[in-house]
Amino acid sequence: MEEQVEMVGKAFVDHYYHLFDNDRPSLALLYQPTSMLTFEGQKIQGTDNIIAKLVQLPFQQCHHVISTIDSQPSSFAGGILVFVSGTLQLQGEDHPLRFSQMFHLIPTVEGSFFVLNDIFRLNYG
Amino acid sequence: MEEQVEMVGKAFVDHYYHLFDNDRPSLALLYQPTSMLTFEGQKIQGTDNIIAKLVQLPFQQCHHVISTIDSQPSSFAGGILVFVSGTLQLQGEDHPLRFSQMFHLIPTVEGSFFVLNDIFRLNYG
Repeated sequence: MEEQVEMVGKAFVDHYYHLFDNDRPSLALLYQPTSMLTFEGQKIQGTDNIIAKLVQLPFQQCHHVISTIDSQPSSFAGGILVFVSGTLQLQGEDHPLRFSQMFHLIPTVEGSFFVLNDIFRLNYG
Repeated sequence: MEEQVEMVGKAFVDHYYHLFDNDRPSLALLYQPTSMLTFEGQKIQGTDNIIAKLVQLPFQQCHHVISTIDSQPSSFAGGILVFVSGTLQLQGEDHPLRFSQMFHLIPTVEGSFFVLNDIFRLNYG
């Protein structure tokens, strides 16, 4: 069970940042109308608003490199919490940005997961 | 409702790090046997094991300074996700350490909250 949680967390993270770096609008597949994103303190709700925010970020190309992934069951109905740290390299920038991000994944009736909670912060300093 | 989530998150964070910095064993009040802590990748379960880990950290005195607190409802029965970033100053060390931490708070029958999920990471680099 614990191994499965780790596997789901890692597979999700690989999938999420691959889509983010290569086809950002397709991240819409991972959210639902009840999804919440807090991006650098800004609160956004629902798939359409979340994707609009992510697509309008002030860079076209980026590359995430993951440093750590920690996953835990959130204890009801198969939910999984995933905590990620890593760096974000923007095109034309010399230095990558450090970030931390957490996701709360909820099982779907189709046997997959969607992102209910998503909180993103850059780590300055 | 949204304001209440923010208020609970902030009050919890203030309380948690005040206890951590001043009376670490009393953090036991905030965990339960089902609680999970992942500390720098190490998985620990249950109040007793979690407190043993926190009390045995290789420093006696420390001071947390919080930079950001982001809170969201985790959508079932009043649960709240709290995402924290800040610095940790250890006694005798010149430079504070940056950290990120997330908590999943679950309401208790007594009208308070306990920590079901706790993930802690230092932010290097």
